[in-house]
Amino acid sequence: MADRPGIKALLFDVFGTVVDWRSGVARDLGQFLSRHAVPIDSFEFADTWRREYTPAMEEVRSGRRPFVRLDVLHRENLVKVLTDHGIDVTAISTEELDELNYAWHRLDPWPDSIEGLLRLKRRFTIAPLSNGNIRLMVDMAKRAALPWDAILGAEVVRAYKPSPQVYLDTVEILCLKPEEVCMVAAHNGDLAAARQCGLKTAFVIRPTEHGPAQQSDLTAEQVWDFIATDMNDLATKLGCPT
Amino acid sequence: MADRPGIKALLFDVFGTVVDWRSGVARDLGQFLSRHAVPIDSFEFADTWRREYTPAMEEVRSGRRPFVRLDVLHRENLVKVLTDHGIDVTAISTEELDELNYAWHRLDPWPDSIEGLLRLKRRFTIAPLSNGNIRLMVDMAKRAALPWDAILGAEVVRAYKPSPQVYLDTVEILCLKPEEVCMVAAHNGDLAAARQCGLKTAFVIRPTEHGPAQQSDLTAEQVWDFIATDMNDLATKLGCPT
Repeated sequence: MADRPGIKALLFDVFGTVVDWRSGVARDLGQFLSRHAVPIDSFEFADTWRREYTPAMEEVRSGRRPFVRLDVLHRENLVKVLTDHGIDVTAISTEELDELNYAWHRLDPWPDSIEGLLRLKRRFTIAPLSNGNIRLMVDMAKRAALPWDAILGAEVVRAYKPSPQVYLDTVEILCLKPEEVCMVAAHNGDLAAARQCGLKTAFVIRPTEHGPAQQSDLTAEQVWDFIATDMNDLATKLGCPT
Repeated sequence: MADRPGIKALLFDVFGTVVDWRSGVARDLGQFLSRHAVPIDSFEFADTWRREYTPAMEEVRSGRRPFVRLDVLHRENLVKVLTDHGIDVTAISTEELDELNYAWHRLDPWPDSIEGLLRLKRRFTIAPLSNGNIRLMVDMAKRAALPWDAILGAEVVRAYKPSPQVYLDTVEILCLKPEEVCMVAAHNGDLAAARQCGLKTAFVIRPTEHGPAQQSDLTAEQVWDFIATDMNDLATKLGCPT
């Protein structure tokens, strides 16, 4: 077991790790698609929208595009995916598209997230280290009562995970050493990048993030410092009382 | 009365407005000075330390110095003030000086702050817009249970108030219009700068921030949108139920 007493702050991936983005986005998409009589499965559409996420961020990570917040990338991707599905976006009001884009601000936590975070917060500084922008994280936290101590992440350091700069600059903002900070994520890739920067790592398995047929991130691909079945289990493994 | 329903977020000055920096710093200084048998009044020393704050930030605001976080400026100023008082800082351990410097992280809220913020938080997004750095604000909030929705301020935008950039970049991060954001401060100068940027303004009078003989900021120097006697009064004036 890793040196738990040496850890002072926990940084959380959010989409998939803390909240169930797929169900939340599909819920809001369902209303939209039904209103416009578009015969597309809302979960399938949510998956398609999400698949544009990585290539859009890659434009920023590669330096081909200056940093823009995730709301902007989500909005561009939404127009692309709607258009790819043959929907005429010029016939839909800007306000309605903006509102649909904010579906990402209205995601529900996994059932264990709040209780686990509240336990962890009593012992550690807890903050998101998400690619989501500050306003998105604030809206989500207020709606779902996520008890963050601060909102950190991509927009604060103006770079996207898994760029090393995101982890290292955030550790520097916290005035801590990398080994005093633990990255918590349901994604092996995120943890691998954090470990490369010297952070401790905690894998929380989320086997249905991508739906019932999920193929990725079903197991720990490295010997992470902590491996937990959910956020409550992580709190227990980090010695936090119930 | 200003258009209260149009306000979506409240940004707070912290030192003096939310917390009583003078008593908190003097408390920790008292222990330090007594340990080193230095016959200086701890409140007077706190005032002297604080007086170095504005000129130190001015070096950054003017562009003569790249942005450094407030912890760094406080630490430099501490060494200066100790030396000015004839204290040999080389005889004191780095750890002890660092610990004393973190007195600014251990400040108590004014008696009305927590209750007022909790009321305001139910209706608005609330965040510090302080010159204090993120770690400082996080430590303070965790110790004192300040219920911020996010930690914003100088370090996020890498500039110091009252530079317009601080207010405008923070409004932009919140994805709001300036008139949807209200600056809350006990200092007329801070509010004047915020108003110049189009923000709404709320003056909370703190007549003993600088001790019993305070001369400044005893009255509103402009017709601010809201004028309150404390944070609870502000919550009432902004229509927040008890």
